[in-house]
Amino acid sequence: MTRNATIAVIALLLPAVAFGCVTEDVAAAGTAKPASPIYGVQLPDGYRGWQLVAPALEDKPLDELRAVVGNGGAIDAYQADTLPFPDGTVLVKLAWARTRSAEFGPASIPGAATTVQVMVKDSARYATTGGWGSGRFIDGEPADVAQHQTCFACQQALARDHDYVFTRYAP
Amino acid sequence: MTRNATIAVIALLLPAVAFGCVTEDVAAAGTAKPASPIYGVQLPDGYRGWQLVAPALEDKPLDELRAVVGNGGAIDAYQADTLPFPDGTVLVKLAWARTRSAEFGPASIPGAATTVQVMVKDSARYATTGGWGSGRFIDGEPADVAQHQTCFACQQALARDHDYVFTRYAP
Repeated sequence: MTRNATIAVIALLLPAVAFGCVTEDVAAAGTAKPASPIYGVQLPDGYRGWQLVAPALEDKPLDELRAVVGNGGAIDAYQADTLPFPDGTVLVKLAWARTRSAEFGPASIPGAATTVQVMVKDSARYATTGGWGSGRFIDGEPADVAQHQTCFACQQALARDHDYVFTRYAP
Repeated sequence: MTRNATIAVIALLLPAVAFGCVTEDVAAAGTAKPASPIYGVQLPDGYRGWQLVAPALEDKPLDELRAVVGNGGAIDAYQADTLPFPDGTVLVKLAWARTRSAEFGPASIPGAATTVQVMVKDSARYATTGGWGSGRFIDGEPADVAQHQTCFACQQALARDHDYVFTRYAP
């Protein structure tokens, strides 16, 4: 990690520690849902029912089928071509190991779920990471700090021109 | 087409011609939405906002990313493991040409939309095809009779044990 990235991470962590943001969010929801390190992002309720933005295929070695879904604000922004995405936008990427269909040879389909990745837009809270907070979950539990340190670096390097979001709305 | 298949197709077409089913459905909706041959299935309103059942990849030569979405009855049936699917179930498969992401090399993503395929469960109306009526649409227009004659033969041969539906709910 570069010195600047280290400073950015520390800057993000400080308010969370000082003001207990993560703890408050969990308490407010009345649940003990785990939150991602650095960002304090939780798996949003009901995301599996959200509207599809687009499916994707990730090559080997991951070899995953994926689907990004969005909350109402996300879908509205996509349909109106609104950039940057407004505060309150939430995107969730579901991923599954790719498996050959037993019934139809030319098709491959979702096998076991692998990760669920969340992006939450809050331009004030996440000012140093393009306005986005990220969470990467495996079996409902957040991945470690090191994995979360990679999120914004990749988004910034490759998707800056689309408000740090890779996924486009499938027509 | 075998003689039995020919009889089945004629048997399906006769009531539609005799009683004007397809025309009535279109008139009742107050629109001129096109309907599939044989089955009289239309693209359902609002299907793009329906809940995701599962994404899939179809190998070359089609080389498509796909996503099946379902109406409320479909999702309820999947979540309760209800087979056969109840009358009123509607499944829609969206398909896109698979395209390499310009921003993230290991990913491929939806390109142009290719077909939208619909399955409607009505065990009385579609009694001779497992209770399912099918529609295959390209740019909103139904494909021809010959393409619709292939639907049930394939479903019957390969997916009979899952009520003629290939797609499972992605976990």
